[in-house]
Amino acid sequence: MITAGIVGGTGYTGVELLRLLSAHPAVTLRVITSRAQAGQPVEAHFPNLRGVVDLAFSEPDPATLGDCDVVFFATPNGTAMEMAPTLIAAGTKVIDLGADFRLRDLEEWSRWYGMTHTCPELAAEAVYGLPERHRAAIRAARLVANPGCYPTAVQLGLMPLVESGAVDTAHLVADAKSGASGAGRQPRQHTLLCEAAENFHAYGASGHRHMPEIRQGLSEAAGHAVGLTFVPHLVPMIRGIHATLYARLHDPATDLQALYENRYADEPFVDVLPPGSHPETRTVRGGNMVRIAVHRPVDSDMALVLAVEDNLVKGAAGQAVQNMNLMFGLDETAGLAHTAVLP
Amino acid sequence: MITAGIVGGTGYTGVELLRLLSAHPAVTLRVITSRAQAGQPVEAHFPNLRGVVDLAFSEPDPATLGDCDVVFFATPNGTAMEMAPTLIAAGTKVIDLGADFRLRDLEEWSRWYGMTHTCPELAAEAVYGLPERHRAAIRAARLVANPGCYPTAVQLGLMPLVESGAVDTAHLVADAKSGASGAGRQPRQHTLLCEAAENFHAYGASGHRHMPEIRQGLSEAAGHAVGLTFVPHLVPMIRGIHATLYARLHDPATDLQALYENRYADEPFVDVLPPGSHPETRTVRGGNMVRIAVHRPVDSDMALVLAVEDNLVKGAAGQAVQNMNLMFGLDETAGLAHTAVLP
Amino acid sequence: MITAGIVGGTGYTGVELLRLLSAHPAVTLRVITSRAQAGQPVEAHFPNLRGVVDLAFSEPDPATLGDCDVVFFATPNGTAMEMAPTLIAAGTKVIDLGADFRLRDLEEWSRWYGMTHTCPELAAEAVYGLPERHRAAIRAARLVANPGCYPTAVQLGLMPLVESGAVDTAHLVADAKSGASGAGRQPRQHTLLCEAAENFHAYGASGHRHMPEIRQGLSEAAGHAVGLTFVPHLVPMIRGIHATLYARLHDPATDLQALYENRYADEPFVDVLPPGSHPETRTVRGGNMVRIAVHRPVDSDMALVLAVEDNLVKGAAGQAVQNMNLMFGLDETAGLAHTAVLP
Amino acid sequence: MITAGIVGGTGYTGVELLRLLSAHPAVTLRVITSRAQAGQPVEAHFPNLRGVVDLAFSEPDPATLGDCDVVFFATPNGTAMEMAPTLIAAGTKVIDLGADFRLRDLEEWSRWYGMTHTCPELAAEAVYGLPERHRAAIRAARLVANPGCYPTAVQLGLMPLVESGAVDTAHLVADAKSGASGAGRQPRQHTLLCEAAENFHAYGASGHRHMPEIRQGLSEAAGHAVGLTFVPHLVPMIRGIHATLYARLHDPATDLQALYENRYADEPFVDVLPPGSHPETRTVRGGNMVRIAVHRPVDSDMALVLAVEDNLVKGAAGQAVQNMNLMFGLDETAGLAHTAVLP
Repeated sequence: MITAGIVGGTGYTGVELLRLLSAHPAVTLRVITSRAQAGQPVEAHFPNLRGVVDLAFSEPDPATLGDCDVVFFATPNGTAMEMAPTLIAAGTKVIDLGADFRLRDLEEWSRWYGMTHTCPELAAEAVYGLPERHRAAIRAARLVANPGCYPTAVQLGLMPLVESGAVDTAHLVADAKSGASGAGRQPRQHTLLCEAAENFHAYGASGHRHMPEIRQGLSEAAGHAVGLTFVPHLVPMIRGIHATLYARLHDPATDLQALYENRYADEPFVDVLPPGSHPETRTVRGGNMVRIAVHRPVDSDMALVLAVEDNLVKGAAGQAVQNMNLMFGLDETAGLAHTAVLP
Repeated sequence: MITAGIVGGTGYTGVELLRLLSAHPAVTLRVITSRAQAGQPVEAHFPNLRGVVDLAFSEPDPATLGDCDVVFFATPNGTAMEMAPTLIAAGTKVIDLGADFRLRDLEEWSRWYGMTHTCPELAAEAVYGLPERHRAAIRAARLVANPGCYPTAVQLGLMPLVESGAVDTAHLVADAKSGASGAGRQPRQHTLLCEAAENFHAYGASGHRHMPEIRQGLSEAAGHAVGLTFVPHLVPMIRGIHATLYARLHDPATDLQALYENRYADEPFVDVLPPGSHPETRTVRGGNMVRIAVHRPVDSDMALVLAVEDNLVKGAAGQAVQNMNLMFGLDETAGLAHTAVLP
Repeated sequence: MITAGIVGGTGYTGVELLRLLSAHPAVTLRVITSRAQAGQPVEAHFPNLRGVVDLAFSEPDPATLGDCDVVFFATPNGTAMEMAPTLIAAGTKVIDLGADFRLRDLEEWSRWYGMTHTCPELAAEAVYGLPERHRAAIRAARLVANPGCYPTAVQLGLMPLVESGAVDTAHLVADAKSGASGAGRQPRQHTLLCEAAENFHAYGASGHRHMPEIRQGLSEAAGHAVGLTFVPHLVPMIRGIHATLYARLHDPATDLQALYENRYADEPFVDVLPPGSHPETRTVRGGNMVRIAVHRPVDSDMALVLAVEDNLVKGAAGQAVQNMNLMFGLDETAGLAHTAVLP
Repeated sequence: MITAGIVGGTGYTGVELLRLLSAHPAVTLRVITSRAQAGQPVEAHFPNLRGVVDLAFSEPDPATLGDCDVVFFATPNGTAMEMAPTLIAAGTKVIDLGADFRLRDLEEWSRWYGMTHTCPELAAEAVYGLPERHRAAIRAARLVANPGCYPTAVQLGLMPLVESGAVDTAHLVADAKSGASGAGRQPRQHTLLCEAAENFHAYGASGHRHMPEIRQGLSEAAGHAVGLTFVPHLVPMIRGIHATLYARLHDPATDLQALYENRYADEPFVDVLPPGSHPETRTVRGGNMVRIAVHRPVDSDMALVLAVEDNLVKGAAGQAVQNMNLMFGLDETAGLAHTAVLP
C-alpha cells in the first residue's frame, strides 16, 4: 500500500482528495494537515466523511510527511514551493495542486502570482501533470505540477486542433464557465448563496492567471506561440466547468469528429461524444471524465468545441490521483471509477 | 388611457406583460386570451398577480381585440401572422413578441421556422423593434416585430463596433447564456429543476433561430454582410441573459470605452459600466436595462464586450412596452422604472 | 417630505431599505452610514441601485442623523440601544430593525443576546412594531422595535387562533423555513453557495433567539403564557419564509377559514387565501404581503396554518416602512405596492 | 451472480437502480423495460450512465422478466399488481418500489390511490420492506413492498419513541421536506426550474398518500393506533428529504440520545449523530444512510427528531437493493457504500 499525506486539507480540493483516496484500493491515508483545524476530526469539518475517514487534522510536520510515499499539496499558492524541497530530498513524491510549479517562465509566474519564486530548480524539474500530453514524463517524475481546473478543460478541448495544425492559432477563444466551488471554501461575499445564486457574470475578463498556463500548454502542443483570449464566468451551481472553444479552421472541410476520436481513442478519461451532442456538466459530476463534442456551426468557418469536466475531480483531485497512479506504476484508472449521480 | 389586449398570455412573456402593463400609468388592460385557460382567473395561473390583475383568460375574439388600441402577441410562432392583418385593418396597432415578422428574408424565415409565411405584405411593412437602432420608424409603425431575447443583448453589445467599422466583421463570436425562463412555461423534461439545476450545457450549437436574426441586424448596421458564430447555453437560474462577445479590432488602440459611452449617451435603457466592470444579470432582473462593459484582454487584439439583460423584460415584454410607448407618443420610459430586487 | 437616515446600511436589510425608501413618494433619503464602507458610493456595494441611489456611505454622525425626521437602525444587536437615546432626545423618531427593543423582559433579553441592556427606559417605552396587533400604539410611538423575520410570520399565522382561544396554547408548534438572506451578508462558510445550495437542514433546534420574541407576542395575544416549540430551517434559496404552524383545536368543528378572513379583513398586508391553498414564498418576493392558508388535515384535530412572507420586506424593511407610514400619519401602504416578479 | 430486471426504468427511481445495480458485486443487469423508450440505449436517456450501462430499453416481456432472479418495479401505481403474480409464479422475487403492496387495508388503499386492488392475495403476503423493523420477514419474502420516501424517514425518525412508549402517540407531527426529484421525471409545470427554484411551499396539506402508510407502520410499532399530522413541502433542490418530527414526552427527563443510540446500534444504515447536531441532507446524497439527531427544545416537553435521507436511495432504490441483499442472503450492505460528494 502507498502511504499518502495531504497538506492543507480543509478546502474543497482537500475534501475531494480525501473522498477519492479513502476509497482507493492501493492507498493508505496517513496524515492530513491544517494549521487552523489541528486537532479537529475530519468529520466535523466534512460531514460527508463521517464513518469514512477517521483521521484528525494535524499541524504540518516535515518528518511525518517525509515518511509518506506521496504528499499532495492542496494549499494556497506559495506553500508548496517552500516545503517540497525537503520532501523530495526525503524520497517522497510530491503532487502540487496549486500553481507553484505550473509555469516554465518564472518571471511570468511572478507577474501573475505576485511573489518571487523560491524554488527555481524544482520548477525546472517539475512535470506538468496533464497525462493526455505528458504521460511518459509523469511516470518518471518526482514532482508533478497538477494543472489548473480551467487549463485542463481548455487544453484538452483545443489540443487536437493545435497539435494537428488545423486552425489559426493566433486567435483562439476560450469562453469558460465554472461552478462556485472553483472559488474555494474561504468565506467571501461574492460566493455567498445570496450573491451567486440566480446570477451570472464574467470575472477576470481583462486577464486571469489561468491564461498564461493555457497559452504555455497550447504553444508547446502547437510548436509555436499561440494567441488566446480566455474569459471565465461564474455559474450559479456548485461543480462543473464548461469550456466553449472557438478556432478558425484553415480548411472548413476538416473532419473534426474523426480528428478528436482518433486523438483520444486510447484515453481512459476523455470521452468524445457522438456528432451533434452537447455535453452536460452533471454527467461528469464526481467523476474524472472529460466529455467533448465538436461542432461546425452553420454558415461559419469556425471549429466549435464543447468540453466539460468536474473542476474538483479531473480539474484537481481526480487528475492528481491519476498522476499518482502513473508515478507509482498503478493502473491509471485505479480509484477513479465514479458514476455521476443523476439527477 | 390606451386600451391593451394580450393574445396568448399563459407563458412567461404573458405574465411579464401583465405585470408591466397593470402598473403602467397610461394603459388599461382590456383582455387577455388563452384557449386552454379560458374562463380561469389570471391569479389562479399567476399567483403573484393576486390582487393586482382581476381579469380572467378568454377565448381570442377578433372583435374584442380589434377594439383595443394595441394588441400584444405572446404566442407560438405562426399565430401572429394569422391574426395581425384583421387587427391592423381595424386600426389596432400590433406588437408581436414572437418571430413572425423579425426576418426580412422570408425564405430564410421558412428555413428556420419550418413553415410558409402567410403574410408577406405585413412582413415587409413590419418595423424591427430595437429602439436603439430604429426609434423613428417604430414611432410611425402599425406593426412592430419585437426582437428576440438573445438578439437584443447581442446586437446592442456589438452594434457600436460594427457601426463604427472598428472590427473584423467576418468572424464575430457571440457566446450567450440564458436562464431557463427563455425556454418557456410549457412542461418539458430538460427544463425540470432536476435536470437543469446544478448543470450547465450549450444547445443549438450547430445552428439556432436567433443567429439569422442577429446577423440580419448587424449586417444592416455594418452596411455589409457580417459573419457570426452564435452559441447559446442554459444557465441554472430563472432569469437573465449574459452575452460574451468577441471581435477582432482593426486598431488595438481603439478607445472602446469612449466608443460605447458616446453611442449610448442618450439611451435610457443602455448603461455602459465603468472600465473594468463585469455586469451581473441580477442587477437588471425585473427591469428593462441592458448593462454593458467593454474590455481589452491582456496580450490580445480582441475587443471583449459583456452585456446583460433580463430576457423577459428588455429581451421581451419590457422592450414591447418601450415600443408601445414610442408608437403612442408616450414618454419612452413610462411604466419601466423597476429597481432589481437584490439579493 | 420626510427626511430619513439609515444606520448600518451595508447588509441585506440596508439595501432593502434603500430600495423601498428611494421609491417612497413621501421620503427623502438623507444619509446612510457604514464605518467600513465610508466614502464608497452605494452603487459600488449594491449594483442594483446604480442610477437609483446617488448617496455614498458615511461615518455615523449623531448631528446629521439627529437632523433627520426618522432614523432606521439596520445594525448588529447592541448598536441601536447606544445611539437611540440621543436621537430620540433630538426629536428624531427611531425604528430599530435589530433586536434591542423587542423583549419586555430585559433579563431574558440578556440571556439570549449575551449582553446587558444599556437603555432600560427606552426599552420600556418602545412599541413592538407589528401593525396588525399594535397599530394605534405605533401611530403614537417615538421608538418602534421592528419585529424579527420569523416572529412576524409565526405571530401573524397563529394570532387568530390564540386570540380567539380556539386552540391548546400549551403545545404550539412552529416549523419555520427561511431563505439564506436571513443570515445576512457577512461572509460565513455555511451560507456559501457551495454549502447551502442542494442542501437542507435545521439550525438552532435546541433554542433560537426568536422563540422568546414569538412567545412574548403570542402570550400577550392569548392573555396568558403560551408554550411554543420553534424550529428554524435553512432553505437553499435567497428570500422567503414559510411557517408551518400546528395547534390542537379545542373544537374540531371550528370554522378556520372564517376566523382568519374576519380577523384580517381590514389588513392591507395580510392575504387569506381560498380554502385548500398552499401559499408559495415566490408570490410575496419583494413585496410586503403575508399570505396565509388554513387547513384541517384528514383524521386529525389539528389546525394547520401555512404562512409566507418575504423575510427582508414584511420580515424587516417593508414592515419598517409600514411602521414609518403609521408614525408619520401617511397612508399605511405608501411606497409598499410591489408586485412579485414571477418567474 | 443474481440476474436482475427493472420494469419501468425511465424515471428517477429507475436511473438510481441502474446506477446502484450496475456497480453491485453480485448482480448482473439483464433487462430494463420502457414502452415509450423501447429500442433506445439507456445512455441516450441517462447520459451519466454512458460507458457504464450498455443496455437498451425494451418492451416489457413476461418471459424475459420471469427468467430473472429478481425484478424491480419502478412503475406508476397499479402496474406491479398486474404483473407480479406471473413473475412470482415463475419463481422470480419481486420488489415493488411503487405503492401497490404497501397498505394492509385495501379499502384504505383504494381510497387513497383511486383504483380497486386486483391482487389481494399477494397484498396479504407482501412484506413491508423496512429492514430496521422487518428484517427477518424480508429475508424470507417472495414479494417486498418497498416503503415510500417520506415514510422511510418519518418511521425511522419516530420509531424509537413509539416503540418505547415514551411519547403521546395521539398527536404526532411530521413536518417533512423533499427535493423535487420526489415528484418524478414526467414533465409537469410545478417542477420546472422556473417554478420550483427560489420558491418554497407545502403541498397535500389536507391529506397525502404517505400519511396512511406512515400511520400503519407507527401503529404497528406502537401496538395501537397512532394519530399523525403529516405535511410535505417542496424544497428547491434536487435530492434529499428532511423530516422534522415532534412528539410530546410523557417524561421530559427521557434520555433521548441513549434511546436512539441503543435502538440503532446494529443498524448499518442509520447513523445517530452526536447531541446538538443538525443533520444535513447533502451528507447522505447518493448514499443509503439515514442520519438522525434528537433534541429537547428549551422550555418545552417536546421530543424533537431531525432525520435526513436521500429520497432516491434509502427512500427508494437503495432500500430496494438493501431488501434484495436480504432476500438473497447477501451482505446487507453489498453495493451500498457510497460517500456523498461534498460540496
